[in-house]
Amino acid sequence: MASFPVPTDVRRAPAELGGRPAVLVEPATEPRPGTILYFHGGSFSLGSPTTSLALTAHLVRRTGVRAVSLDYRLAPEHPFPAGIEDCLAAYRELLAEVDPASIALVGDSAGGGLAVTTCLAARDAALPMPATIVAFSPGLDHTRSGATMRTKEGADPFFTQADMARTRELYLGGQDPDQPLLAPAARADLTGFPPILLQVGSNELLLDDSVRLAERAREAEVDVILDVTAGVPHVFPAYAGTLDEADQALDRAALFLTQHLPVA
Amino acid sequence: MASFPVPTDVRRAPAELGGRPAVLVEPATEPRPGTILYFHGGSFSLGSPTTSLALTAHLVRRTGVRAVSLDYRLAPEHPFPAGIEDCLAAYRELLAEVDPASIALVGDSAGGGLAVTTCLAARDAALPMPATIVAFSPGLDHTRSGATMRTKEGADPFFTQADMARTRELYLGGQDPDQPLLAPAARADLTGFPPILLQVGSNELLLDDSVRLAERAREAEVDVILDVTAGVPHVFPAYAGTLDEADQALDRAALFLTQHLPVA
Repeated sequence: MASFPVPTDVRRAPAELGGRPAVLVEPATEPRPGTILYFHGGSFSLGSPTTSLALTAHLVRRTGVRAVSLDYRLAPEHPFPAGIEDCLAAYRELLAEVDPASIALVGDSAGGGLAVTTCLAARDAALPMPATIVAFSPGLDHTRSGATMRTKEGADPFFTQADMARTRELYLGGQDPDQPLLAPAARADLTGFPPILLQVGSNELLLDDSVRLAERAREAEVDVILDVTAGVPHVFPAYAGTLDEADQALDRAALFLTQHLPVA
Repeated sequence: MASFPVPTDVRRAPAELGGRPAVLVEPATEPRPGTILYFHGGSFSLGSPTTSLALTAHLVRRTGVRAVSLDYRLAPEHPFPAGIEDCLAAYRELLAEVDPASIALVGDSAGGGLAVTTCLAARDAALPMPATIVAFSPGLDHTRSGATMRTKEGADPFFTQADMARTRELYLGGQDPDQPLLAPAARADLTGFPPILLQVGSNELLLDDSVRLAERAREAEVDVILDVTAGVPHVFPAYAGTLDEADQALDRAALFLTQHLPVA
């Protein structure tokens, strides 16, 4: 995992949510109302709140909203659906404390996928919907049926199909990927979802995961922004401070988040 | 044409650009660098800078950037390509005065289509590209081949297919619509285009015009944001002050514009 410099003007503290460890990230000044429930990336088998901490902290700084980043269980020790169960338990515990309209589900890569599937699992459990979802280069289809899985092979500077096949096997643990919680871009009905922002690079193997999720959102009459930047790497907003496109994408994500979270 | 209240804190003055009348709209305070070249809507046969003035003024207020709104020639007296010729002449004259990197092509409905086709005509004339394009519910396909032309019939609160067939005949004047300048969403190669923002409602007959233009932009490695809001009318940002979604969409459009125009 690349390591990115973490902004120094946020406070972080260990926390626990839904029975799992977590990291609380707060702005240096009085926070705005609301909670970003953050799910880190790492192909469902790597990473932690620490590896995504820079990105989480950039969002906290830009929005003024606190974040809780969850250390959900990983494959191969804990294949599907363990990670989603942890994320749902965290969301459920948060609901006991705060208004659902003050919660944003946010994540990068596999964590972007978890933001979507946690919302799906919450809806199917008749829990209230969060205010919004933001996903950076999300993985949304373990059937790998997006055309860009093939057409962007070689163009994607981060993933190869072979990489993704390996981590997929770890997460599936022999289970059939052809189900909504494993392939929301291909199989999920998003009826009742809150507004969604998807940010992704044009050269990613995962591009069509976002393209198709946006299509499913439109079909379900859900507000959705498909924000594609050319020639940038996987989860490019993590390059804030280095890549202009990253800072600009984060500014757009922060505006979107604050438009859907309670007014300060 | 609906008439919307025009913000009072902008200044407007008659102007001329590329041999056509225009309206200059300026912020009350010192403007930021840059020029919004605005093309009004009206199905290529109706409207004027005045009918889109509220929307133009909202963008000027939010960005701090001046706008010039062009009174291009209309069908049926002046069918295709008269309007595009006027828009291109206006862009060409503006290029003699200012840096292309300080120009945004912006329009609503038919004018959103003109923002795209003027850029196409400019590229094909080897003119430098503007900084960005913003289009609200653009009309981008006179072959009417988008699936939503049929699937949203009855759901669209503004247009019917019959309406659009009438105005199409006026604009075509018997010409074949199957060409890039009449059907950019279906036929145009967008290589070399600047970043594009498309804002559209989920129930519009014209939805797929934007969906397919975004697809063409991604294919051409062009930055593109497809921003779809559920259940809102055609050119809904014009309802600023009345509809929360309109104000929020305009705030996103203003951020996008200022990200791509010179820094103040």
